[in-house]
Order: sequence, then C-alpha cells, then structure tokens
Amino acid sequence: MSDSSEAAAAGRVNIVAVAQRAGVSPATVSRSLRGMAKVAPETRQRVLDAARDLSYEHSPRASGMASGSRRAVAVVVPYITRWFFSTVTAGAVDHLRVNGYDVTLYHLGDAAIRDHFFERMPLDARVDGVLTLSMPLTEEHTLALRALDIPLVSVGSPIPGSPSAGIDENAAARSAVNHLLHLKHERIGFIAGEADDPRFDFVSSAARRLGYEQALRAAGLTVDERLVAAGPHGLEGGAAAMTQLLARSIMPTAVFAEYDELAIGALWALRRSGLDVPGDVSIIGIDDHEMAAMLDLTTIAQNVTAQGEIAAQLLLQVLRGEAGEAAVDPVLLPTRLMLRGSTSPPGTARSASRRRTRRPDRGR
Amino acid sequence: MSDSSEAAAAGRVNIVAVAQRAGVSPATVSRSLRGMAKVAPETRQRVLDAARDLSYEHSPRASGMASGSRRAVAVVVPYITRWFFSTVTAGAVDHLRVNGYDVTLYHLGDAAIRDHFFERMPLDARVDGVLTLSMPLTEEHTLALRALDIPLVSVGSPIPGSPSAGIDENAAARSAVNHLLHLKHERIGFIAGEADDPRFDFVSSAARRLGYEQALRAAGLTVDERLVAAGPHGLEGGAAAMTQLLARSIMPTAVFAEYDELAIGALWALRRSGLDVPGDVSIIGIDDHEMAAMLDLTTIAQNVTAQGEIAAQLLLQVLRGEAGEAAVDPVLLPTRLMLRGSTSPPGTARSASRRRTRRPDRGR
Repeated sequence: MSDSSEAAAAGRVNIVAVAQRAGVSPATVSRSLRGMAKVAPETRQRVLDAARDLSYEHSPRASGMASGSRRAVAVVVPYITRWFFSTVTAGAVDHLRVNGYDVTLYHLGDAAIRDHFFERMPLDARVDGVLTLSMPLTEEHTLALRALDIPLVSVGSPIPGSPSAGIDENAAARSAVNHLLHLKHERIGFIAGEADDPRFDFVSSAARRLGYEQALRAAGLTVDERLVAAGPHGLEGGAAAMTQLLARSIMPTAVFAEYDELAIGALWALRRSGLDVPGDVSIIGIDDHEMAAMLDLTTIAQNVTAQGEIAAQLLLQVLRGEAGEAAVDPVLLPTRLMLRGSTSPPGTARSASRRRTRRPDRGR
Repeated sequence: MSDSSEAAAAGRVNIVAVAQRAGVSPATVSRSLRGMAKVAPETRQRVLDAARDLSYEHSPRASGMASGSRRAVAVVVPYITRWFFSTVTAGAVDHLRVNGYDVTLYHLGDAAIRDHFFERMPLDARVDGVLTLSMPLTEEHTLALRALDIPLVSVGSPIPGSPSAGIDENAAARSAVNHLLHLKHERIGFIAGEADDPRFDFVSSAARRLGYEQALRAAGLTVDERLVAAGPHGLEGGAAAMTQLLARSIMPTAVFAEYDELAIGALWALRRSGLDVPGDVSIIGIDDHEMAAMLDLTTIAQNVTAQGEIAAQLLLQVLRGEAGEAAVDPVLLPTRLMLRGSTSPPGTARSASRRRTRRPDRGR
C-alpha cells in the first residue's frame, strides 16, 4: 500500500484536511505546496500554515507531479457498453493520447468490482491524475479519491473542489418538458432509470427528475405519481417503465424519458402495444443518441465527445500547473432541442397518417 | 526506448526469429526460455539451441513475467464507440479486473493515433501482455507487437502463433445467406463496411464477403457486382450503401449486411424510401446488436462479451504459464440465427399487413 492510501486508511492528515483548515480548495493546496504560480502569496501562506499546524507532509511521489514521468491517467467509468459512456470515454481517451498520456481504464459497472476498487484504490502507484466519467460517487468514494492527493477532474458528477465538464442537467430536463408543454400537453409522464444499487445513482438522474417537476409546476400543473415510472438502466428498462405507465389508470399523452436509451425502449413498448407515436403518445429524451435520428426521436442534444475532451483538457491543465482558481467552476456545454417526429400536439393522428402516406412513393 | 523495441528497430534478433529457427511458436520460445513446465525436453533443447545460434538474449524485463509485479495488460481496440467493440472491451476488461489486472486502454480508431502508437510502441514498459480486440493489423504492426516479446492474445483477427477467440466469420456469413436462400431469394445483395484507410481493413470483412460469394455459388447463383455496395463503417454507411443499391438497374429482394449497424442503416434508408421490410426487401445482419430485437432485425447472433472474456482468460493462462500448445488454435464460439421480422420470402406483402393489423389493439 502506498504512503497516501495508508495515511487515508489510518485517518491521518491528507490534502482535504489541509484545504478545510486553510479555507481553500484541495487544488489550491496542491498548487501552493508545489510552489506553482497563480497562487496569491497570502493564500499560499495560509496553506503553508495549515499544513504546518496539521503536520501535513506533502509527498511528491503521491502528487504524481514531481517527475511527470508516468504520463498516465486513470479513467473511471461506470458502464462502457452504453452510448453516452463509450462516447465520453472516446473523447477523453483520444485527447489524452494525442497529448502523450496513457490511459488506465477502470470499468466499475458491477457493484462488487466497484467496492473492491475503492477499498484497494490502486490508482496512485500508476497514474498522474484521475478522470471520473459520470461516475456516481458516495462521499466515502470521493474522500478516497481525494486522499490520493493527485489531480481529479470529472464529467457529469462534479467532485467539489475539482474541475468538471457537463451540461446543466436541470435546464436540459426543463427544456424537454417545456417543449411538450408548448405543444399543449398536460398529462406529461416521466420515465427514469433505476440504479441496481441505491448508492450508485447518477447525479443527473435526480437533477433531471427535479427539472421535470419544476417545469410542470412552473406551468401550473401538479406532479402526478401515476405518470412517473422507473425501469433498470437501458433499452429494456425504458420498455418496462412504459409498460407500467400503460397499465395505470391514467394515461400520459406525452412522456419525457431521462435519456434516449430509455426513450427508445419506450418507443418499442408503445409499438408492441399497437400505439402510435406521436399520435397516441409523444416521446422526448435527452442525448441525441446515434440511433435517435434514425428512430425519428425528438431529443435534447448534448455534445458528449466534447465533454470527454474538455475534461481531459482540464486535467492536462492541472497537471501542467496551468489551471487557475476559476477552473473549479463546472464547464457547462450548451444543449439544443432536436425536433423530430416523435412529438406532436396531443391527440393528433396527423403524423400517423403522414407516415402511412410515405409508403407508396417507392419508385426512385 | 526500451531494450526490446530498440532491438526491433535495429533489426536485431527477437523471439520471432528464434521461433522460426526452432520451428515452434513464439509462445513456446517464451515458455522454454522461462523454464516453464509443459514444454517437452527436446522442444526446449531445440529452442535453447536456436537462441544460442542466433545469440538471442532473453530479457526477463521485456517478458513482463519475471516479477509479475506490474499486473497490467494493454487492451488495443480500434473503435470503442461501436457496439461490438465496447461490448468485447467490457467482457475483457471486467475479466482482467476480477483477476487483479489493471488495463491500459489503447483506442486506435484514428489513423494518425494508430501510426504514432506503432512507431512509439509504448507497451512493454508498462504491461505484462497485450490483448488486441478485432484490431486490423498490418504485417509490420504484427511484427512490432511480436518484438515486444510479451504474451499476445487477440479477438477476431488472429495473430499467427498467438491464442485468439472469435467466431467462424466465413460460416456466419454463409448461414446468413443460406437463410435468405431457404426463403427462395435469388437476387441477394451484400452491404459491406469500408475502412477509411485501406490498410486498416477488418479480417472479418474479407471473410464475410467470401462467405457471401461461396453461399451464392453453392446454390448455383452467380455473384452480381450490381448487388454489392459499400459505405463507411456504422449506421450512416449502411444507409448510404442501401441508397446506392436502390439507385441501380437491378434491385435485390434481400440484402445481407456485413454486421448489424450496417443492416440497421439499410433499414433506415429503405424506410425513408417508402419501401417495406421485408415485403419489398428482406434484411439480415450479423451480431445481434442491442437494438436488433427492438428493430425486429433477423441476424446471426454472436456472444461478444464471451469473446472478450475468453480472450482475457487465454491471456491470463499464458501469463501464468498454464497455456499448452493447443491454445494457439483459435477458440471459435458458436453463432445462431435469430429469426425476426426483417426477413420473409420474396415479394410477400404478408408481413407488412401483419404489422398494420397490430395497430388497432390499443386498449389495455
């Protein structure tokens, strides 16, 4: 076991404690102790005082900065087979590679692998920094990562005091629901993804659910739990949640799904039930999944590759000592409504007939 | 630069040359020089003689075996955002993780990154072994990997003399075409994926194309180039290739696409053209992509996760010195026909009407 994880295990002083005592971010502590520019002299003094008071010893080995010889970054990702995660991973990994960094991939989808990882915490012996990609982290996990005392950057689930990239999850959800409200829908359902382990819930899930509720309330509507359903993450979960909604006493005229794979699963369940989209039910998601255009799915598009690239860039800036204080604010990328055929005003069979008339024009 | 890659660069003797002289596989050379069991005494002597004749010095450092302390494997993959590759990567990475190995991910989709990787070849300083996942490799690349003198295992594109896992690509393609032949199709088209760089073509592409031609010829049909089209890899490429086919003087009644993403793109292009699947054109792919069931796509299913797991297992066996000579034969997994709604006998509008009658039963 390394110095820093031993220290963490024994509850000894780490960079987080020093940051708290000095009233600055852990990144500032790291920069101050490494003698980097861009730290105000008084701030640096406060950090040095706090470190002395706590008898904190800065270990150049653990910081991963002193030699710079490893040129390796850990990328921690929960699910690599799902579109969002493989896309953000590719964005990050490619940016790190062209900048000369190797990537050690930690794929932590399984609860047992996850727990084992955070207990053993094998990162600091091998890497200069850590990039967590939409990784749900308990407070314990965050502290364990912090105790490594190497730069951390995240996508999607910001780690307090560390740089991050993402979108405004709450605003994206409100945009989706507002689109349905503008079409005059009033019975608007919500489909959520359900974590297999309740401690392993995405930050974005809660933010999007909240955005759904806020948009309804802002329009003077109430949140009706009969219009809300959840299924396991992925296509099948979306189909299962839609099937639940169809079995209830009240039927939504439109459904906002937390992300596109759930929305696509919902489309599937509706088709199997003989219902027309958007004639009977409108569907909207978030992502602009690679299949969304093909399936004619209206969605709130986000640039996932760019989020991975920007996070990698932020990490490289920290590793080069170029990051200022401002870098700790999340970098939020814009989203936009991709208007396609899966949404329309309620009760319009118009689009269903439009689709039927498309069939005959086959000769080209 | 490390010893072994320097040796390779200088054209000095490496394990491949020793294997050739001794008339055994590089894996046997490695095992013999490391004094492992499961090598017959005469074989070992032949290897030692060849090594002495060539003044080959076995470097325990380069072999990655002596200490076993790195516990890290390189996973080399061309495209991580496509279903097959993210799935096979997850299978391999998870198996390595539960066995205590870290994974350094090399994502080499871009030609510039690929060339830089093989020039710099940064693997041997960091890892005990290499897993290449359906990675198209030139002879130069293969020699560069060999010269690392550490265990190699592959999925899909076997490296001669190294263990591998995959499916019988040629047989899978023949199964797909035979299904269409059994349905009495005679104008059977083929949609292929086109590499951006001709040196970067998948081994499976050629094998599947050959299987298509062999199945047609075995049925007494000729290969008509007007029924064959190619597009860039992925959904859009499949749509582009299908659009090409639709513009030609002769129209297929059924199309076999090299893999499911191309088949799904073809479905998309047909729908946009107002054509019915399978009424006007039947479509079959290979994979059983996560979206295939939802899109009612008939396909030849392969277990992609298992291929990643088995390849990881084979590599761990070599690293533990447990692999016998037999392990160099590819481990081929079975495939099976997933019969769904995208294929039917030619000219039957039957299934189109079946789909339409599904619509009314909406009250549940």
